[in-house]
Amino acid sequence: MLNQGATLDRVFQALADPSRRAMVERLSRGPASVSELAQPLDMTLAGVVQHLQVLEASGLVRSEKIGRVRTCRIEPSALTPAEEWIGARRSSWEHRLDRLGDFLAEPEQRK
Amino acid sequence: MLNQGATLDRVFQALADPSRRAMVERLSRGPASVSELAQPLDMTLAGVVQHLQVLEASGLVRSEKIGRVRTCRIEPSALTPAEEWIGARRSSWEHRLDRLGDFLAEPEQRK
Repeated sequence: MLNQGATLDRVFQALADPSRRAMVERLSRGPASVSELAQPLDMTLAGVVQHLQVLEASGLVRSEKIGRVRTCRIEPSALTPAEEWIGARRSSWEHRLDRLGDFLAEPEQRK
Repeated sequence: MLNQGATLDRVFQALADPSRRAMVERLSRGPASVSELAQPLDMTLAGVVQHLQVLEASGLVRSEKIGRVRTCRIEPSALTPAEEWIGARRSSWEHRLDRLGDFLAEPEQRK
């Protein structure tokens, strides 16, 4: 439970930056080298590497260096806890709306 | 587009803290006063108010002070952009897997 909390902290933190989200968007379409990630971002390689470290620490991205090229890949399952957390809030809120709907639909004398 | 990016920054940042997530979880079940939010968190009221400010800036929570009591409510639609952003990454990645599956299922001579 604590671990899951820490994982959510890191995933949401990783996604709270537009450059990191752009990197995740790019990697969702397929693996890329660090230079390929840097190209559309108008950012130095050092800047991209820093963001990459945050993404790797969150588990959202893995990278592997072969020869001179570091290839980055998305780890899609790492998005699941964040997706489930948001989904659970929606369920909780919709359940509350359903109960309100039931209450309002009851005949007046039963209230 | 820029505005949407800034909104996502703030929503993901707001969710990157366990106390703020606990507050959103509590408010998904119904409105609460600041003291009610503070109670299970073992936190000072001032600490809760600080987190509340981050949540309000992200649009996830609204609060209204009537007399001496500030009542906080969830704004569920504010979770939608974050939910959609994660969903779009999943679609993009699943589409890539589908294309890979199609490729692998093709007869050998067509490759």
